[in-house]
Amino acid sequence: MAQTDLHDPAEDSVENVAAEPRVEELDEDNLLKPSFVNAVRAALADGDVARVYDLVEPLHPADVADLFELLQPAERAGLAAAITDLMSGEVIAELNDYVREDMIEALPAAAVAEIAEQLDTDDAVQLLEDLDAEDQQAILAEMEPEDRAVIESALSYPEESAGRLMQRELVAVPDTMTVGDLIDYLREHDDLTTEFWEVFVVDHRHHPVGTCQLSWILRTPRHIALTDVMKRDQTLIPTDMDQEEVALRFQKYGLISAAVVDESGRLVGQLTVDDIVHIIQEEAGEDALLLSGAGDGDINEPIRDAYSARVRWLLANLLTASVASFVISRFEDVIAQMVALAVLMPIVAGIGGNAGTQTLAVTVRALATNQLTSSNTWRAVRREMSIALLNGTTVALVIGTAVSLIFGNPMLGLVIALAMMGNIVIAGFAGVFVPLTLDKLRADPAIASSIFVTMTTDSMGFLVFLGLAVGMGLV
Amino acid sequence: MAQTDLHDPAEDSVENVAAEPRVEELDEDNLLKPSFVNAVRAALADGDVARVYDLVEPLHPADVADLFELLQPAERAGLAAAITDLMSGEVIAELNDYVREDMIEALPAAAVAEIAEQLDTDDAVQLLEDLDAEDQQAILAEMEPEDRAVIESALSYPEESAGRLMQRELVAVPDTMTVGDLIDYLREHDDLTTEFWEVFVVDHRHHPVGTCQLSWILRTPRHIALTDVMKRDQTLIPTDMDQEEVALRFQKYGLISAAVVDESGRLVGQLTVDDIVHIIQEEAGEDALLLSGAGDGDINEPIRDAYSARVRWLLANLLTASVASFVISRFEDVIAQMVALAVLMPIVAGIGGNAGTQTLAVTVRALATNQLTSSNTWRAVRREMSIALLNGTTVALVIGTAVSLIFGNPMLGLVIALAMMGNIVIAGFAGVFVPLTLDKLRADPAIASSIFVTMTTDSMGFLVFLGLAVGMGLV
Repeated sequence: MAQTDLHDPAEDSVENVAAEPRVEELDEDNLLKPSFVNAVRAALADGDVARVYDLVEPLHPADVADLFELLQPAERAGLAAAITDLMSGEVIAELNDYVREDMIEALPAAAVAEIAEQLDTDDAVQLLEDLDAEDQQAILAEMEPEDRAVIESALSYPEESAGRLMQRELVAVPDTMTVGDLIDYLREHDDLTTEFWEVFVVDHRHHPVGTCQLSWILRTPRHIALTDVMKRDQTLIPTDMDQEEVALRFQKYGLISAAVVDESGRLVGQLTVDDIVHIIQEEAGEDALLLSGAGDGDINEPIRDAYSARVRWLLANLLTASVASFVISRFEDVIAQMVALAVLMPIVAGIGGNAGTQTLAVTVRALATNQLTSSNTWRAVRREMSIALLNGTTVALVIGTAVSLIFGNPMLGLVIALAMMGNIVIAGFAGVFVPLTLDKLRADPAIASSIFVTMTTDSMGFLVFLGLAVGMGLV
Repeated sequence: MAQTDLHDPAEDSVENVAAEPRVEELDEDNLLKPSFVNAVRAALADGDVARVYDLVEPLHPADVADLFELLQPAERAGLAAAITDLMSGEVIAELNDYVREDMIEALPAAAVAEIAEQLDTDDAVQLLEDLDAEDQQAILAEMEPEDRAVIESALSYPEESAGRLMQRELVAVPDTMTVGDLIDYLREHDDLTTEFWEVFVVDHRHHPVGTCQLSWILRTPRHIALTDVMKRDQTLIPTDMDQEEVALRFQKYGLISAAVVDESGRLVGQLTVDDIVHIIQEEAGEDALLLSGAGDGDINEPIRDAYSARVRWLLANLLTASVASFVISRFEDVIAQMVALAVLMPIVAGIGGNAGTQTLAVTVRALATNQLTSSNTWRAVRREMSIALLNGTTVALVIGTAVSLIFGNPMLGLVIALAMMGNIVIAGFAGVFVPLTLDKLRADPAIASSIFVTMTTDSMGFLVFLGLAVGMGLV
C-alpha cells in the first residue's frame, strides 16, 4: 500500500485533499458538500461515467467511502462501476458495514475475490465475515489457495475476537540479530509490509520477547544487539480476546501496535492502533444506543432489522408500564375522589425516571471504562446516594411549594414533596444497583438496565405518591 | 522516556506486568485485585512505607494511576509520598482529571513544578490547565524560564483545542535532505524526542510539505531525496481546531500522528494517536451521559459539581413535566367520569417516550459520527418514520387487544390503540427533528434534545389519548 503512496503521482493529488480540508469537495466540517454529492448523483443519472470519475478521482479514499454511504442504495452499484480502479482496499475498509455488505452482495463472487486479494488480511476478513456462509464459500473458492487459507483461518476465530481483527502482515525478527542486521534485513526484503510501526523480536520458538520502536532502531549504532534495544514491555493479545478488551488494553497502555499470540504463545499476527480506534469509538458510543434499546442504531441498518430490535424493547417496556398501571388501578377510588392526584402523579414518576437515568448512565459508563471495580463500589454507591438526597431535597422543596400555592392545598404540597423525595432516592438506588448486579452476572449493564430502572421509578413513583395521599388522610 | 525503557532493568520488570496480564496484582479483566488494593491500604494505614513501595513497584504506570483512583481521597497523598520515584510522567498523565487535580492541589508548588518539568509539554499542560489561575502562576513561577514559556504558550490556546493537546517535541527536517542525511541527523542528535512515528518534512518557511513513515526511511536507499519518499498526504491540524474535530480526522484518515500548524501555516507541534484515543473514547462515551443530563458523569467528579449539573436538569424536566400535567388538568372531569383513563394514560406517554428516545439516540450518534449530513437527512427521516409506523402498528395492536379484553371495553381498546399509534409517530418526528434542529443551530444535539423530546411525547401522549376518549364519545 504505502509503496504506491510513495511513487504514484496520482495518489499525491488524492492526498492533497487531506492536506487542505477546505478543498472544494469538502465543507468546513470536512464533510462532502451536498452540492458535490448532487453533482455526482446527476452525473450517475445521466450515465456520464467520465464525469463521475473526474468528480470522485481527487477524493481521499475515506471520502469516497463517505460518498457511497451518502448515495441512495440504488445509486451505489453505478458509482462502483464508474470508479473501479479507485475502489482501493482503503475505500472498502472505510465503508460502513451495512453498506459494504449490500454492495458486496451485488457483485459477482469473482469480482469480490479480486478485491479481497488486494486487501490486508484484516480488511479482507472484514469484507467477508458478515456475508452468509454460501456467498463466503463462493468467494473463497475464487481466491488463490494461500490467500484463502489465511482468511479461512481468520474466520475460524470467534467474531469480534483479536484473531479476526489481527493482520498477518508484520515484521518479526530473531532475538539473535543486531540493529545492523535488522536494517539490512528490512532493506533486502521488499516483500515485507510497509505498514508497521514496531518490529517484533521473537525467540527460537517464535514467541515474542520484545518490541523495537523504529525510532530507536534509527537512533542506535548498528553493532548493538536488538535484545539491548528492544522494550520488553509487551501487551500480548491472545487470539481469542474480545475486541472491547483489546481496545481497553490499547488505551490503558497507550499502544501503537501489539503482538497477537496463539494458545502456545507463538506470534501469529499484529494489531495496530489505527484499526483499534474504530473499535474504541464503536464500543464507547454504543452505550447511548443500548440504554435506549435502539439496538445497533446504525442509520444504514436495514429497516427490518432496526424495527425488530426496537419493537422488542418497546413491547418489553409495555409490560413494565402495565406494572405501573396496575399500581394506579389499585387507587382508582382515591383518584375518583381527588382527580388532582391523577394530574400530578406523572410528575413524580417522570422526574424519578430522569434521576434514575442519570445515575444509570454514570454507572454504566464507569463500568465500561473500568473505573468502577469491586474496590470502589461502596464509595460510588455512597456518592450516588448523597447526590440523590441533595437532588431529592431540592426538587421536593420546589414542587412542594408550587403545588401548595397553585392548588391552594399545603397538605397536597407536602404529600408530593415527600413522594418526590422518596422516588428520587429510590431512583438513585435502582440506577446504581441494577447495572452493578447485571455486571456481576456478567451481562452487559447497558442493555437491560434502563427497563428495570424505569419500571422501578414509575411504579414506585405512583405507589409512594398515591399511597402517601391515602396514608396522610388527604382523601 | 524510551531511553530509560531501553537500559533501566527496573523498568523491564515493570514492563512484564503488561506482558502477562495475569500477574498476581491483576484479575482476569486486567484490573487491580481488591485483595491487592486492600493490602496497599493496610500498609498505608500502618505507615509501612517500605511495604507500600514493594507492593506498587512491579506495577505498570497505568496501573499505578488506577490504584490512586481506587484509593480513598484521604489515602492518596500517603501513597504519593511512599512511591515518589515511581510517580513518573506516565502515571500523572494516566490519572483521572479530578483525581490529578486534587492531588496536585495537595502538593507544594515547587514539587508540582518539578514533576511538570519532567513531562512532555502535552502532559505538563494537562497537569496545570484545570488548576485555578493563582496556583497555576505559583507553579509556573517555580519552573525553568523556557519550560514555563512553552507551557504558557500552550495555555494561551482555547481549552480542548489542538494547541492545548499538541506536544512540542517532534522531528522536522528540511525538504532538501536525502534519506541518508535524515538517518545521520537522527543518529547525531541524542536530544531529539524518541516518541515519534513519522518525520515531518518542512520547507524554508517551516511549512510542512510531507511526512515520512519511519518504515519507509528504513527501506529506502540513502541517496534518495526525502521529497521522493515522503507522503504528501497530510491532515494539517490548525492550533485552534476543537479536540472532537481532531479525533474525527484521526479516525477518518487513520492517522498515527499529525502536524499542528499556526495561522501562518508554520509547523508548531504534533499530535499522536495514543493521546487521541483518550479523546475518541471521551467524546464517543459522553453522549449517553449528556442525553441523561448527568453532566460530566465522572465518578471522581466532586459531589457538589455532580449535584449542580444534575439538579439543573431535573428542575428543567420539572417544568416540562408540568406542561404534561397541565394537559391532564384540562381533562379532570373526563377522568373523574372514567378513572380507567388515569390508569392507562401513563402507558401511552411512557412508551411514546421510549420510542422517542430510541430515535433520538440513533440520530445523535449519526450526527456525532458525521454519518448524517444534509445530503442524506431526508433518507434518515423517511427511515425513522417507516420504523415508527411499524413500531406504532405493532404496539397499538397489542395494547388495543389487551385493553379491550382486560377492561371488557373494545371502544377503550380502540382509543388507546389509536393514541399509542399517534404518539409513537409523533415520537419519531420529535426524535429526529429536535436533534437535527439543534445541530443546525450549532448546538450539541446530545445536550438538550431529550428534554424537548420527552416533553413532546408526554404532553402529546396525554392529549391524544384523553382527547380521543372525548372525541370518540367514550365519556
